[in-house]
Amino acid sequence: MSSRNNLPKGLPDNIEEKKQKAESWFQSLRDQICASYETLEECYPEHPLENGQKHMETGKFIRTPWQKSEGREGGGVMSIMKGRLFEKVGVHCSTVYGEFSPEFRNQIPGASEDPRYWASGISLIAHPVNPHVPTVHMNTRMVVTTSQWFGGGADLTPLLADRRQQSDADAIAFHKAMQIPCDAHDVADYDKYKAWCDDYFHLKHRNEPRGIGGIFYDYLHSADEGGNLNSNEWDKNFAFTQDVGRAFKDIYPKIVEANFAKPWTAEERHAQLVQRGRYVEFNLLYDRGTIFGLKTGGNVASILSSMPPEVRWP
Amino acid sequence: MSSRNNLPKGLPDNIEEKKQKAESWFQSLRDQICASYETLEECYPEHPLENGQKHMETGKFIRTPWQKSEGREGGGVMSIMKGRLFEKVGVHCSTVYGEFSPEFRNQIPGASEDPRYWASGISLIAHPVNPHVPTVHMNTRMVVTTSQWFGGGADLTPLLADRRQQSDADAIAFHKAMQIPCDAHDVADYDKYKAWCDDYFHLKHRNEPRGIGGIFYDYLHSADEGGNLNSNEWDKNFAFTQDVGRAFKDIYPKIVEANFAKPWTAEERHAQLVQRGRYVEFNLLYDRGTIFGLKTGGNVASILSSMPPEVRWP
Repeated sequence: MSSRNNLPKGLPDNIEEKKQKAESWFQSLRDQICASYETLEECYPEHPLENGQKHMETGKFIRTPWQKSEGREGGGVMSIMKGRLFEKVGVHCSTVYGEFSPEFRNQIPGASEDPRYWASGISLIAHPVNPHVPTVHMNTRMVVTTSQWFGGGADLTPLLADRRQQSDADAIAFHKAMQIPCDAHDVADYDKYKAWCDDYFHLKHRNEPRGIGGIFYDYLHSADEGGNLNSNEWDKNFAFTQDVGRAFKDIYPKIVEANFAKPWTAEERHAQLVQRGRYVEFNLLYDRGTIFGLKTGGNVASILSSMPPEVRWP
Repeated sequence: MSSRNNLPKGLPDNIEEKKQKAESWFQSLRDQICASYETLEECYPEHPLENGQKHMETGKFIRTPWQKSEGREGGGVMSIMKGRLFEKVGVHCSTVYGEFSPEFRNQIPGASEDPRYWASGISLIAHPVNPHVPTVHMNTRMVVTTSQWFGGGADLTPLLADRRQQSDADAIAFHKAMQIPCDAHDVADYDKYKAWCDDYFHLKHRNEPRGIGGIFYDYLHSADEGGNLNSNEWDKNFAFTQDVGRAFKDIYPKIVEANFAKPWTAEERHAQLVQRGRYVEFNLLYDRGTIFGLKTGGNVASILSSMPPEVRWP
């Protein structure tokens, strides 16, 4: 494992082939997740809504490709579904490359002397209609500068206070699902990644956690413990990143199905909309990906598709 | 006029008396504005609402005092009204003092050698129910470090696209009202303050303005053009700051009354809630006061009372 401050320079062999493998994996994972969520939309039980409102039709993902502009290169595909179970869910793949602007060069490992970068990843945020169904976020990515690393993670945000507890069945199931890929791969450290997640997804101004946590990792580099580049290490890191994606793909639908038949009250819907405000506060005040994306000319529509569809600050 | 980078050091005579005068003024302005908005609540015509929803009762301001904690000193009073015209309006006075943390000392004029500060001000954000009635923001403040200055301004945000135009009657009336105190005081420069407002309230990531503008000024210092401290200058700056407050107090109710009888459609309410999302994005991504307050242990409830009560990111 490498932290940001001691990331060794140098790239594993056949980096172009590895970039292609990672990009293809993120897209394949996206396809599997989108198919799974469309199935959940079909299975969602009918619920009576307030004030005679009607459920939306069963949702289908709509894919929208985008390209970077103004001298930056690369692009991606937004996949957004607005349905009757998923009020809004975005599953985005992007592959971008170019040069970091001077203000970012010293913040990114390996970019201070040579500002060129390449990054590919998948990111997902789901906002269900039903307040009993937790919001979830997942992101994994491969980054190449003069160094190379993987990062990512997944975290769960139950919206109702009595479910936003470590002792809740959803929290236990989610943590267990995230522990399995960590325990299965020598390159990963579950306790470290769990603590990193708790630390990262903390609203400092309110001194409260965003959700119940999960895992967060970054700067997972293709060098062995002696700092020597070793293509085998890339394979291990990539395999771990794939298994995080697979674990996420499998656990979230189970948590959805465990909750989605529960009816809710107007008070629970209100509590959900207020708690979503914390999500907005976190993403705009603290989230590195959001702020970095918005300040480097990223695609505003896909970055801010993380915003909940309806929010209240009463 | 002084900009941040050439703010001369030194305080005008009788600074304690001046602090007291400014603080009392902000509180007096708050009292006048609150009384005026409670009267508007009474005058607001009944409108039919969607889905059989009922209007709230006529609102009254609720005042909540707060104190800084953890070694910081001072406090303030939040005044919040939730009513049938004003979905949420906050008018806050605070007077805080203490020492800037090391990370802020070099960002604040006069604080790099001596980190002590004192600041008193009023800030206001109003979010009306009716999409035809613009949102408004106003803030004025007096700051003392080893230097001393005034800052503030007011800006108007019509929520409907066809009203968010410089040629709209509300925009013309608001700009004119803000120009009058600028033109009446030699220390002020309307063209500069109008441009500063447009520049400040700009959403860079979307390359769009938050509203139709107004005025924004800062670092208005008690030295004459030669850089010499002059108590007379403080009087001039304070008189200008008072007149900005008075102009704001008078114009916004007129704009409310010009619009508040208009009925609205569900589509206009939706457009209002989406546009409010831009307000959230601005306040959390760019607003210096919000970010500074949240990162220096300010009162989260009063700082984030600027958040709109209901928002959509569809």
